[in-house]
Amino acid sequence: MQANQTWEQFCESYWWDKAVPLRLDLSRMGIPAAFWKEIAPKMQAAFEEMQQLEQGAIANPDEQRMVGHYWLRDPKRAPDPTIRAEIEQSVQRIKEFAHAIHTGQLRPTTQPTFTRFLQIGIGGSALGPQLVYDALRSPRDEMEGFFLDNTDPDGIDRLIADLGEQIASTLVLIVSKSGGTKETANGMLEIKAAFEARGLSFERHAVAITGAGSKLDDLAQQTGMLDTFPIWDWVGGRTSLFSPVGLLPAALQGIDINQLLAGAAVMDECTRRADLNNPAARLAASWYFAGDGRGQRAMVVLPYKDRLLLLSRYLQQLVMESLGKELDRDQQVVHQGIAVYGNKGSTDQHAFVQQLRDGADDFFVTFVEVLLDRKGRSFEVEDEITSGDYLLGFLYGTRQALWESGKRSLHITLPETSPTSLAMLIALFERAVGLYASLININAYHQPGVEAGKKAAGAFLALQKQLLTFLRAHPHEAFSIPQLARSLQYPQQTDALFYIAEHLAANQRLIASDAPPLARTYQFKSPPTTSRPLH
Amino acid sequence: MQANQTWEQFCESYWWDKAVPLRLDLSRMGIPAAFWKEIAPKMQAAFEEMQQLEQGAIANPDEQRMVGHYWLRDPKRAPDPTIRAEIEQSVQRIKEFAHAIHTGQLRPTTQPTFTRFLQIGIGGSALGPQLVYDALRSPRDEMEGFFLDNTDPDGIDRLIADLGEQIASTLVLIVSKSGGTKETANGMLEIKAAFEARGLSFERHAVAITGAGSKLDDLAQQTGMLDTFPIWDWVGGRTSLFSPVGLLPAALQGIDINQLLAGAAVMDECTRRADLNNPAARLAASWYFAGDGRGQRAMVVLPYKDRLLLLSRYLQQLVMESLGKELDRDQQVVHQGIAVYGNKGSTDQHAFVQQLRDGADDFFVTFVEVLLDRKGRSFEVEDEITSGDYLLGFLYGTRQALWESGKRSLHITLPETSPTSLAMLIALFERAVGLYASLININAYHQPGVEAGKKAAGAFLALQKQLLTFLRAHPHEAFSIPQLARSLQYPQQTDALFYIAEHLAANQRLIASDAPPLARTYQFKSPPTTSRPLH
Repeated sequence: MQANQTWEQFCESYWWDKAVPLRLDLSRMGIPAAFWKEIAPKMQAAFEEMQQLEQGAIANPDEQRMVGHYWLRDPKRAPDPTIRAEIEQSVQRIKEFAHAIHTGQLRPTTQPTFTRFLQIGIGGSALGPQLVYDALRSPRDEMEGFFLDNTDPDGIDRLIADLGEQIASTLVLIVSKSGGTKETANGMLEIKAAFEARGLSFERHAVAITGAGSKLDDLAQQTGMLDTFPIWDWVGGRTSLFSPVGLLPAALQGIDINQLLAGAAVMDECTRRADLNNPAARLAASWYFAGDGRGQRAMVVLPYKDRLLLLSRYLQQLVMESLGKELDRDQQVVHQGIAVYGNKGSTDQHAFVQQLRDGADDFFVTFVEVLLDRKGRSFEVEDEITSGDYLLGFLYGTRQALWESGKRSLHITLPETSPTSLAMLIALFERAVGLYASLININAYHQPGVEAGKKAAGAFLALQKQLLTFLRAHPHEAFSIPQLARSLQYPQQTDALFYIAEHLAANQRLIASDAPPLARTYQFKSPPTTSRPLH
Repeated sequence: MQANQTWEQFCESYWWDKAVPLRLDLSRMGIPAAFWKEIAPKMQAAFEEMQQLEQGAIANPDEQRMVGHYWLRDPKRAPDPTIRAEIEQSVQRIKEFAHAIHTGQLRPTTQPTFTRFLQIGIGGSALGPQLVYDALRSPRDEMEGFFLDNTDPDGIDRLIADLGEQIASTLVLIVSKSGGTKETANGMLEIKAAFEARGLSFERHAVAITGAGSKLDDLAQQTGMLDTFPIWDWVGGRTSLFSPVGLLPAALQGIDINQLLAGAAVMDECTRRADLNNPAARLAASWYFAGDGRGQRAMVVLPYKDRLLLLSRYLQQLVMESLGKELDRDQQVVHQGIAVYGNKGSTDQHAFVQQLRDGADDFFVTFVEVLLDRKGRSFEVEDEITSGDYLLGFLYGTRQALWESGKRSLHITLPETSPTSLAMLIALFERAVGLYASLININAYHQPGVEAGKKAAGAFLALQKQLLTFLRAHPHEAFSIPQLARSLQYPQQTDALFYIAEHLAANQRLIASDAPPLARTYQFKSPPTTSRPLH
């Protein structure tokens, strides 16, 4: 691609607006003027769909639900006064609850104040809150935050060890829209057991964030948890950050959630414009251009700021779960998506930038620059050069080296890593994903593909129960995998039996013979598990 | 792809060995028998090259150096007795040094013992050690570990805040093979300043790990750092984990480094076999099959274990920096590479597995299972089912759902996350990368593409100096970007001047006029920086 651009060409491809301090530079995307003309009518259709969505259309026809995350930042836009009131009340209640926690009005059972919070949630109930927490944490925070986002027993034990004695002053937030997410349910049971093993009431330390009437909501009522906050039907997991899912932990951390909401709201104003002076439209159009509307180039996310390390993980969900679809809205097979990866610069320059520069042209980079280097002043590591100058130098140098080898990048500039800036950045990507989905005619708000894995996991666990039942009924016999497959009438995916048996044996729940893995026999062992954990 | 396999078919594609507890299941890669015949002669050539490499051939012709990371695990294989003795002595010295630190024989200037270590390094000097630290950390560790892997001023300040008062009992490891890595040099200067701001001698808390005779080595001698450990010329950054780069922090953490070395050595024995009963050869062949020898499918790394979260970042470097090459060894343009991404399961099932299942067939998954759920016993979250059963169920369910939609995966099983197992896993991938590079005829041991970015960064910083010199010479005038471009005779990439000026202005080092970004003028401001930081 041409290595040089005039100042005028650069200015044309540089988006800024006096309303928001975020800027977007597309000068290294190599987008010809003709493309903007070509995409304009499609983009107009996308704007219209977005307007309908914001007005309360059924934007997720699979689940027959509205998609209302934009209302969270501007409740007066909600399509009916009940929703508006619910949003406003929830924000108020979050502030009051956090205040009560911080001041010790609400206190743990044995300690004077809650000093830590632990959020148990996965996917949309963890990635955004983790990003906000890590991007904004400081020694002045009101509370220290922890996250449990898996059903890994060892990971849970490690977390409990990290909490240590301070588990007694830990507030637990259990977050699941459906209330039935297994990882979250298991995490809750494990943490509850850890509280109880220490003689602490779990419920007096627990808050539920969930859909009204969900299993978790019922449990919270029945067991008398401290409080419950809503996740509305019209909020999707991956766009739930500005609902109680993200606002409650942020408020507990000590972040001014008004700033988060205001940052997103002001970006929403910019991205609501029905023309190409809309930064989300520019971003979505660039993605379309880079991947020819078929996701043919991966999005490599490189924020040059340690605090934004988790941005790529957040965007992996937002982008890939929204856009990775088999069927378009006309039920045509399209296999859409955009792969997202990356960590941070300049660190990744010493990892995979070698391949970006010299390997296949199968990606475009999203650089994120933060103008403010640090709170205090910097010193010079060399004549006239600070460590922050190096950071920007490496960003620009990489962008330039990629450009010279024909690789595209776009460049987002933030003034600082504040609640406002971070919220703007997130709101920008949320809208860009929505517009891009319209451009490629897919539904961005469902996730039909994850069901198949859950179903197969259910079948696997059902098979485990069958296996244990069978072996319990034959306590003195040992069986090989082929024998078990025949006995259980499970000739397909016989390897599932093998994985189950090996896992149970490794955890002292079956007796395996002393043979090589594939030739082993397995026998019942009693008792296979304990009903109470020993944290 | 066919959904069912017989037990016999499964057994054929399942690799195990009585020497090592790691297992490799290729049953869901869909590799036909014919492929193994086809790849066999190429693989034989790869084995021969590997043998020459292990015997001390110049395997990195660009840098005219040997590639000796396998000797680190079995020093008697080193091509000459001096190298063997150096390896053996370094391991002994690491153990002695760690012992002296743990017992307080070596102590900080104002505290009784060193309780923390801080490793300053980037790329190969950070990713492996971070993986080992995080995968193996426990409350019983001898020291707590911290890592500084960037030149981000705010990130450095945050780290210093995290160290807090305990900076006085922190041992600093400065790691750079060349001794000239800018991020590491800047990090060192910043941390040194933080020590000195507290009246602490940096050098009495510092250790250098670097090449003999490097700038850093000289500095360590001149300033009297506590000790120096070698990175030999024949160790590359991304394969330096079993050199002092990884062994010293591991020993300080309290890990038995003999176990790390033994785990890698025993895997090396398996992967040295010159036939397809070699698990690294099987792995490399699978990559070749999946991407048609041209990296056409990304490697998605999904360990179902929280402790292995950093595995994908480690593999991004190992795989992408080794394989992402423009030219093959015959100087033909090939643009090779394999993109690597992923975090952990089942968490990622709630993020991007939607796209894996329903999107394009442009990847293969590497599942990693750990047999041992936890140290203690588990309780049942449902009848006969533990949280660990769910974790495996989700892994198997996802593998099955992917297979049913025609997506490939391979499955590695580890017995536990111990030093031995982790070292085996790393050694397996190190060898697979080497063999795969032979299959596609590229040099896996250089990284020519990263130079261009460094050079462009240097030009950017030189331009900044020019800009500051110019503005200092005209202290009462303000200049627009086009004016500066003309004055500095820098008409190309004028946007570099813009980025420099905006960054300097945001950090109070230039005065920017109150105009919109692109129309601003900039004026000298004095003094632009401080010579001493205020941590």
